[in-house]
Amino acid sequence: MSATAIAPPPRRVRAALLVIGDEILSGRTQETNLRTLAQFLGPLGVSLAEARVVADDPVAIKSAVRALASAYDYVFTTGGIGPTHDDITADAIAAAFDAALDEHPEALALLGAHYAEQDFTPARRRMARLPHGARLIRNKVSTAPGFMVRNVFVLAGVPMVMRAMLEEIAPWIEGGAVTHAIEIRGPRAREGLIAAPLEAIAKARPNLSFGSYPYYADGDFGACVVARGTDLAELTEARAAVEAMFRDLGVTIVV
Amino acid sequence: MSATAIAPPPRRVRAALLVIGDEILSGRTQETNLRTLAQFLGPLGVSLAEARVVADDPVAIKSAVRALASAYDYVFTTGGIGPTHDDITADAIAAAFDAALDEHPEALALLGAHYAEQDFTPARRRMARLPHGARLIRNKVSTAPGFMVRNVFVLAGVPMVMRAMLEEIAPWIEGGAVTHAIEIRGPRAREGLIAAPLEAIAKARPNLSFGSYPYYADGDFGACVVARGTDLAELTEARAAVEAMFRDLGVTIVV
Repeated sequence: MSATAIAPPPRRVRAALLVIGDEILSGRTQETNLRTLAQFLGPLGVSLAEARVVADDPVAIKSAVRALASAYDYVFTTGGIGPTHDDITADAIAAAFDAALDEHPEALALLGAHYAEQDFTPARRRMARLPHGARLIRNKVSTAPGFMVRNVFVLAGVPMVMRAMLEEIAPWIEGGAVTHAIEIRGPRAREGLIAAPLEAIAKARPNLSFGSYPYYADGDFGACVVARGTDLAELTEARAAVEAMFRDLGVTIVV
Repeated sequence: MSATAIAPPPRRVRAALLVIGDEILSGRTQETNLRTLAQFLGPLGVSLAEARVVADDPVAIKSAVRALASAYDYVFTTGGIGPTHDDITADAIAAAFDAALDEHPEALALLGAHYAEQDFTPARRRMARLPHGARLIRNKVSTAPGFMVRNVFVLAGVPMVMRAMLEEIAPWIEGGAVTHAIEIRGPRAREGLIAAPLEAIAKARPNLSFGSYPYYADGDFGACVVARGTDLAELTEARAAVEAMFRDLGVTIVV
């Protein structure tokens, strides 16, 4: 008699993003790092589960870091790691973890090598101050000192530098099951008409999550159904069910 | 002897945004409503002080609404007010305030008038369920039932509909002092070189907040200094101080 193998549930790894910056909240700058991070984490088996945007305010940053670091497997912050007085992320993160802020030898060496001696101002040297125990995140496009401490990755806010840092840390991240998404567009399918059959489809498939998004194209509204889950066979079966639903409603399907 | 008039400090009104939607966190859809809201609120004398993005999850929405509604003067939510099973915002907000969810007579009449009788499906009728005491937010482009309950404005996620709702509610908002911003660009001004003089400028002007943002143009990095405050005279004086700082550093100023 052989024991029946029961597959463990897929391991879920969840992350949060903390965007730090007055320039986002004032409407000056369009935030784009959230989407970059979500698309980076997905294939690594990490789901972005929450994001917050706070001002350049030490109390707000500290409190958000504490809340998110204890609730999620990983936290990513963007912004506030430059040399000016409004760059207070390292200080606030040290405060959140009751950690000291030391000059990090590797960060100091990196910055010292980059600037001529007369250009290595105290403000630039200040960037080498990282929370005790931090691991430096190097990147290919700048000397901005990103770092990891505990489960928090502290990244630059400038999108080009942030992306270069993500490349660096990809191997550091332990993901779980990868969530895949499928998308089925039903032109001229009104959400109010697909709601009931789509709800039945979703209820019968508790392992998957279903979203419905209205869209406008060719002069009319349609509905785009998205299904997400970790099992590709389940998603293939769900696609057939959604396509059958659209067909029953007399809707042409766009794949 | 006449009493010296002392001006009261400017009244600060602060708001938070709660973005509701798996499609933002998964990276499928680029969020743009934050910036729209910030630029709408600014001239009304309301500062956007925090934003959060949560999934289509009743517990996450309820907990974020409670936290934000008690911390800020106004809360704005976007997303999740359509007819499909993943549209759970009204339910979650009712739960956050321990309020019943009733069919709102005005919302019901509006939806009933829009759809032919055979098209007024239970899913569409479900959109008329609003938290007890809610005030309907009509809009010019759709019948989607936005609403206000307590200090929370519940708006559509589709940007075009969200903007139409903002137009409607502008007169409902009691703002405080309007925060103005000025921006002075210093081409080839490296942040590491302006950091010390800019910090001195900022420290001497505690009523204003100063930000420094690196930018890339014409093949080189520059620094853009932003000052924000409610007093235009103070901002004019600050502009002169920042321009003098750039001049002292030998930087051409771009206004």
